[in-house]
Amino acid sequence: MMTHGPFVLHPIGVVESELSDRSEAPHQDTEGAPPAWLVIREDYAEGLEDIHVGEELLVLTWFHLAERGVLKVHKRNRAENPLQGVFSTRSPARPNPIGLHRVRVVQREGARRLRVDHLDALNGTPILDLKPVLKA
Amino acid sequence: MMTHGPFVLHPIGVVESELSDRSEAPHQDTEGAPPAWLVIREDYAEGLEDIHVGEELLVLTWFHLAERGVLKVHKRNRAENPLQGVFSTRSPARPNPIGLHRVRVVQREGARRLRVDHLDALNGTPILDLKPVLKA
Repeated sequence: MMTHGPFVLHPIGVVESELSDRSEAPHQDTEGAPPAWLVIREDYAEGLEDIHVGEELLVLTWFHLAERGVLKVHKRNRAENPLQGVFSTRSPARPNPIGLHRVRVVQREGARRLRVDHLDALNGTPILDLKPVLKA
Repeated sequence: MMTHGPFVLHPIGVVESELSDRSEAPHQDTEGAPPAWLVIREDYAEGLEDIHVGEELLVLTWFHLAERGVLKVHKRNRAENPLQGVFSTRSPARPNPIGLHRVRVVQREGARRLRVDHLDALNGTPILDLKPVLKA
């Protein structure tokens, strides 16, 4: 039983967004990220069935531009904030740079494209997984 | 810019739990999972600073026993439920079997052990990341 890793991720799709530059990206979901398309690879499209317009999803992404060797960061990337342990922050720079985004599906197009209401991820960001939001 | 993957995950730690068998594991967070220890590897312990007792965390794990070739599942693994697209479920069997668990920290022990109130992950499950719960 292999529990020590490493483990290998194969992206299931990619983000299509008007955000193309890190300097435009908001620092939190809630700060006005634009809508985006989640484009799922053809070989994973079957897994997208039963996701409907209006539903909320968690989108797991891979911050492919992030530095991975960082254990202390300035929150929100502002030098005036004190350094703190990276696991107490949402910084994209972290050992396993998995992004987590809560979105709402606003449109489906064909078998493998979902439009979501807002997503703080750059154009071209790999998508790792989609999960339904659990009702409390 | 490498956006097609594959990407490599290095676990930051491991779950210590009394759950040792998949048949005991609850099907959702909310169904009475036991408390557990999050044990972070020494080389990542610095990233654990500034996480305090009482705070809520998201724990990202790797379902190391999950099948990855599955795109349709019976929800809650019950044959009487219809097959549905895996991304519309929380099934551990999925292309990138990343688990997502919302927990509360109830104890810290030394520099790299956090006790959490409940966790639906088996003993020995690799931990990929910890993130704070964002306040709405």
